[in-house]
Amino acid sequence: MTETHWDLERIRSYVATQLPLAALFGIDVVAAESSRARVRLAGNANIARPGGSIAGPVLFAIADITTYVLTIMLRQKDDGATSNLLINFFRPALEVPLVSEAVVLRAGRRLITYDVRIWPEAAGPDRLVAQATATWAIANDRS
Amino acid sequence: MTETHWDLERIRSYVATQLPLAALFGIDVVAAESSRARVRLAGNANIARPGGSIAGPVLFAIADITTYVLTIMLRQKDDGATSNLLINFFRPALEVPLVSEAVVLRAGRRLITYDVRIWPEAAGPDRLVAQATATWAIANDRS
Amino acid sequence: MTETHWDLERIRSYVATQLPLAALFGIDVVAAESSRARVRLAGNANIARPGGSIAGPVLFAIADITTYVLTIMLRQKDDGATSNLLINFFRPALEVPLVSEAVVLRAGRRLITYDVRIWPEAAGPDRLVAQATATWAIANDRS
Amino acid sequence: MTETHWDLERIRSYVATQLPLAALFGIDVVAAESSRARVRLAGNANIARPGGSIAGPVLFAIADITTYVLTIMLRQKDDGATSNLLINFFRPALEVPLVSEAVVLRAGRRLITYDVRIWPEAAGPDRLVAQATATWAIANDRS
Repeated sequence: MTETHWDLERIRSYVATQLPLAALFGIDVVAAESSRARVRLAGNANIARPGGSIAGPVLFAIADITTYVLTIMLRQKDDGATSNLLINFFRPALEVPLVSEAVVLRAGRRLITYDVRIWPEAAGPDRLVAQATATWAIANDRS
Repeated sequence: MTETHWDLERIRSYVATQLPLAALFGIDVVAAESSRARVRLAGNANIARPGGSIAGPVLFAIADITTYVLTIMLRQKDDGATSNLLINFFRPALEVPLVSEAVVLRAGRRLITYDVRIWPEAAGPDRLVAQATATWAIANDRS
Repeated sequence: MTETHWDLERIRSYVATQLPLAALFGIDVVAAESSRARVRLAGNANIARPGGSIAGPVLFAIADITTYVLTIMLRQKDDGATSNLLINFFRPALEVPLVSEAVVLRAGRRLITYDVRIWPEAAGPDRLVAQATATWAIANDRS
Repeated sequence: MTETHWDLERIRSYVATQLPLAALFGIDVVAAESSRARVRLAGNANIARPGGSIAGPVLFAIADITTYVLTIMLRQKDDGATSNLLINFFRPALEVPLVSEAVVLRAGRRLITYDVRIWPEAAGPDRLVAQATATWAIANDRS
């Protein structure tokens, strides 16, 4: 009997079905390796804020989901939770799709820290709309 | 002719109608003064994450909206945007309603920094589920 | 035979003798309980930056030492390390002495998060020069 | 008459003579362009903390100085101040020299955000001891 393996297909389906806000905002997982993950915001009418740009919590959501995907890929299980996340907003995000990419800064046994960058797909990573630094805590395993 | 004034009633209606994610997550503004604002998460099926607790982006959303309310009350206009926000997650948030309260740490001419605390209404502020520090930037006024 | 206990006297001496930068900047521990700690910057010629205000790293140092003191008091041992610290600078710090006070936001088994505020002794805590949020990680105890 | 230009030589001398803590900790500016700056910690007896590793405030100091250098290079004047800085400590820093490198994430008219990474010169950038995200505010120019 083989153990279930976390790969892009499984994680896409997991996020799409188990995290309602992903579908609500039009967020999809597009790449998932153990060193890098990418999420894409196609967007819809739910993501707007007054003034017409994309609401900050939507940008936070894509940053957080990107690190969630990477944590599951690194650990090959879903046993972590965000401990803290700093997000810097650089300019109004006016267009979709947006791309969010996370890479590992340091993977410790109990804490993992990520760098996340968000940019408009059309403009590319030289024109960031936001950047985040997130630390995840791995659940204690006493078993 | 009197200028329109921002008060609790106006800001509740503004958030409810102009920020779709507030209604999607069941977020309501419950207090708005120039020194303190409170937001309440009644919640619904949209706020869950795998494992059953409230998703991090929902907690970020209530923290961010609380500082948004306070910024509008302080400025008596909607001319700011979140510059950065650090959120610390302390324990899984397992129950609604949640209360989020923001106070001003420093109100500068161009930057305003807030302290935000989130707790379960039933447990009270001694049992925080999250805390955030947010800095808002006021739009440049060249007129 | 009694176990050594960490109290204000012991911790003052520990910081003064084991952390050279405390003496270099004129930093002294003035209060140490398990719920609150205070550090005081008397200052000297070493703390200046161009323009004449107190250098940011000196403010970071007093914030970090305040949380260090509180961690030792809470744990009654020196087995932690700063995991991350966000410091917000609100206005130039132009005069000494400065006071730094830390309180616990959440004390977990492995992570402890603090709120730290720094103000000029003469002006009082309504006129903060800086605020910090720090998370400490407790060393793994496998014994 | 030519206007004075900020280059590596000028900025090295400025930091060495105007920021006493740089000399106290053995910090030297080693590269300064408008897109990238590097600072080096040679270290000395002043940088230790209990346990023998390098004290957190020393790591903060090199991160902050690196962004200071980059701000002066970008602006060609010294008219900024750190608004906030989040530093993540990944592992004890046990050896000198350390290298700190800062790059620009976003240079706005009033706010500039940097990514800073710190590593042991011998181990290289794949083994970070700390990472920081710093936002600088440019002084208001009303003249």
